[in-house]
Amino acid sequence: MACALREARRAALIGEVPVGAVVVVRGELVARAHNRREGDRDPTAHAELLALRDASTVLGRWRLHGAELYTTLEPCPMCAGAIIAARVDRVVFGARDPKAGACGSVVDLFAPGRFNHHPAVIGDVMAHACGQVLREFFSAKRVTSSA
Amino acid sequence: MACALREARRAALIGEVPVGAVVVVRGELVARAHNRREGDRDPTAHAELLALRDASTVLGRWRLHGAELYTTLEPCPMCAGAIIAARVDRVVFGARDPKAGACGSVVDLFAPGRFNHHPAVIGDVMAHACGQVLREFFSAKRVTSSA
Repeated sequence: MACALREARRAALIGEVPVGAVVVVRGELVARAHNRREGDRDPTAHAELLALRDASTVLGRWRLHGAELYTTLEPCPMCAGAIIAARVDRVVFGARDPKAGACGSVVDLFAPGRFNHHPAVIGDVMAHACGQVLREFFSAKRVTSSA
Repeated sequence: MACALREARRAALIGEVPVGAVVVVRGELVARAHNRREGDRDPTAHAELLALRDASTVLGRWRLHGAELYTTLEPCPMCAGAIIAARVDRVVFGARDPKAGACGSVVDLFAPGRFNHHPAVIGDVMAHACGQVLREFFSAKRVTSSA
């Protein structure tokens, strides 16, 4: 998660909403990414989705069995759906997202029996630090836009 | 939808699950795509997601206000989430997906008030033809694998 958090901080430095994600397979980091929605002008360029795509490229397969995804923010429906589509084994997330979280906050797309795959989930890991980088980003943005 | 269906047939020809999608803005087709998951070895390479990414590239923006997405199959959670993330105005889909549909079949991610955006939805458009291309694909696959 420390590595995902570094990715989130990189996003903040380039004006992107600071969310970071990494994919780990058997203890080895295979992909890391941060949100690039503004720079790429791509609505799908969330950290989790980019990390999953990179991991697939590295591993040469779309089924990411054996993979764990670490992300600083509870995945949105798109990213939670991508995690299901990629058959990720386990998801570890930091801060909860009461407005868009799809791992229990707004909906729970990982509820057993709902879709054809449901990963194990651990939330609230380094939640304060993961949330803090977001709070600082939006707080600085408000100061800038009211200046 | 006829154009999306042509995309689905293209997918079948290359051994991909036949789903096609197009994005239309003010009556003009700006992007078309078919499922490329196997060929690209990318779990996110569903028709809808690819069409949304292409439309963003063409239009030079991630907010696809004014866009309509036509897809031959009810979007999965990932694609429905991408539709929300891209702020698409309206979704028109063909066949329902009782196993993975996220527009009412398994969950309804577009229910008003749930997320920060909810597109208008029209389902069951050319549903028989859109479902038939999938039925034929899986039926041929069963014959091949049992031969």
